[in-house]
Amino acid sequence: MDEASLFGVEPEELSAVRSAFTEATYRGLEYAYLGSPTRGIERGTVRIADTLVRGYPSTPRVLMLDPGVPTFFDGPLAIEEKLNGYNVRIAHVGEPLAFTRSGRICPYTTRIAREQLNLQAFFAAHPDRMLCAEFVGPENPYTPHEYDVDSLEPRVFDVRHRETGRPMPVKQRRAIAERFDFPQPDWFGVVDPGDIESIREAITELDARGREGIVMQSMDGRDLLKYTTAATHRQDLESAFALPFDYGQEFLFSRLIREGFQAVEFDADETAIRERAHGLGEAILEPMVETIRAVEAGETVGERHTVRGSDSAVGELLIHLEEQGLSIEIEADRRQGGERIVEFVKISNTTRDKIEHFLAGGTIDQ
Amino acid sequence: MDEASLFGVEPEELSAVRSAFTEATYRGLEYAYLGSPTRGIERGTVRIADTLVRGYPSTPRVLMLDPGVPTFFDGPLAIEEKLNGYNVRIAHVGEPLAFTRSGRICPYTTRIAREQLNLQAFFAAHPDRMLCAEFVGPENPYTPHEYDVDSLEPRVFDVRHRETGRPMPVKQRRAIAERFDFPQPDWFGVVDPGDIESIREAITELDARGREGIVMQSMDGRDLLKYTTAATHRQDLESAFALPFDYGQEFLFSRLIREGFQAVEFDADETAIRERAHGLGEAILEPMVETIRAVEAGETVGERHTVRGSDSAVGELLIHLEEQGLSIEIEADRRQGGERIVEFVKISNTTRDKIEHFLAGGTIDQ
Repeated sequence: MDEASLFGVEPEELSAVRSAFTEATYRGLEYAYLGSPTRGIERGTVRIADTLVRGYPSTPRVLMLDPGVPTFFDGPLAIEEKLNGYNVRIAHVGEPLAFTRSGRICPYTTRIAREQLNLQAFFAAHPDRMLCAEFVGPENPYTPHEYDVDSLEPRVFDVRHRETGRPMPVKQRRAIAERFDFPQPDWFGVVDPGDIESIREAITELDARGREGIVMQSMDGRDLLKYTTAATHRQDLESAFALPFDYGQEFLFSRLIREGFQAVEFDADETAIRERAHGLGEAILEPMVETIRAVEAGETVGERHTVRGSDSAVGELLIHLEEQGLSIEIEADRRQGGERIVEFVKISNTTRDKIEHFLAGGTIDQ
Repeated sequence: MDEASLFGVEPEELSAVRSAFTEATYRGLEYAYLGSPTRGIERGTVRIADTLVRGYPSTPRVLMLDPGVPTFFDGPLAIEEKLNGYNVRIAHVGEPLAFTRSGRICPYTTRIAREQLNLQAFFAAHPDRMLCAEFVGPENPYTPHEYDVDSLEPRVFDVRHRETGRPMPVKQRRAIAERFDFPQPDWFGVVDPGDIESIREAITELDARGREGIVMQSMDGRDLLKYTTAATHRQDLESAFALPFDYGQEFLFSRLIREGFQAVEFDADETAIRERAHGLGEAILEPMVETIRAVEAGETVGERHTVRGSDSAVGELLIHLEEQGLSIEIEADRRQGGERIVEFVKISNTTRDKIEHFLAGGTIDQ
């Protein structure tokens, strides 16, 4: 297939598409990634050697399950847990490589994927597919969350054609993942689009356990729809208001809007709405106060992460993060059972500087 | 004084400045107003006949009284109540005219100013000054709030040179306002910049009464600094989340940030912070839920206002608002004591359309 057909663009658009890619290298291997969506091509799409690794598409979200789900789907849908970690595609391009959402090859995730997944066997059988996996767990360089996971593990939630991005039907994908012993997201069954009750039950259960939400999918795997819990909206707000000047206002606003519609759909009465409101207020104010006090006390503010691995794996990861322009401060660095464990902070200079300005009595024009 | 000197710009900037003004007419009188600040010239500056009416400057805000106030002021400061209404300048240009913050002549406010203030006497004595007044009260076409006011009344908080914008010293201004019987904002005395205790007392008292906050001012009237109460932050959030898609995200975010710093400075313990958090959550979620339900029920959503006056005054106001592109829906129109009283809604099409989209099961890409 020629390059324009592969990208799904007109031949005359090709030069614009090519110039939107950013060049990078991984251990001498040259590749280029698409940092933002361009002419219908997904963010995170990668050109590497003579092939393409398609970006993972953004999944539309519904704010009202009813009538959102029956409006979106015209046949049965599979429900799986949506996990809160980071989204990685693993493709075999000369060797198995792990690409983050934006298309960068992550050396740390590549290693963990190779250790924990039987990639040789999978790619021998399916050389032109990519595994789409969420990496979850507390020892996580990007999005740490508590799961029943000690350190960091993948959950394979999709198998797609590497170049076209075409997904496998849901049941086939789950069967293949099982055959290769790949851990998968929890399965909530197949329901009819009108069966809102079952979908709400899944949400209520996940919310009670502090989990993120669900992905609903047509059985051919082509139509995806997501919905998230109040627990995750609050966690998002807590993270964001701990570093208020580093998060986009769009990020904050969207979580508040989700809560508004969820209250209308889920809350039984005004008492339930008031309780939700109080949780929301706590998620906003308390992390912000804590961060202002931390800046006042001269502490480092930023996102805290822990990672674990061989000396070289951890060292390589820290270099990879700094190459992306992040300021890293190492808070603890120790060895345990032959592994190196590093606790570090991605320093938030913007939040620190703005808070220092106001604490010093600085003014603002609004 | 030539035009460039009047504006305080270089002669070669004059054409850029001129073209930033918007032309308008008021009863056949042509004038032009500056809708946004341009080359250091305040928003709301007006060119009319052969003269200039200077815009009211934006007042810087401090988020921490301590050390904000002693950092900002180097001598005694006057404290006055900051009122929550709309800011109007009244200047005598052929006749006394009331200019809103953006520089438009408001026919309704012009009438009320003439009825309630002895403008002939004032402008006879001070022809080149402008009165800066906040119009407050429940019957208010722009910013309705409860005060000890039946309908709508001005509070004169500043007297400035019309063309240069130079303010009068505080005590002289208050004495002149008193001489002409102009109502003024409440007076909280003169304090030293280090006297944070007195300033906090004023804030605490105003907060308990649901009032907006204070303006602090150097005695020559030239340096102004504002600080607002939790009560007003909550009221702002309530208004904004009642029409979430019509308010800017910057508006929402700034109120939340103010609360964070105020909690650090004012709240005695974690219980007080939690109470503040709950109030914040209620101010966000409950108005949003109410509006979603109203759209669901097919009701008109928007800001509700009541105005009162002669037939022609009220009619002229409604035309003035529609000329600004607002969609107005009249909900009640009655007569009382020879006056016309109209209750109307400024319809919020954006909020209605977005909420209808999500209620109908529409999706969003985030």
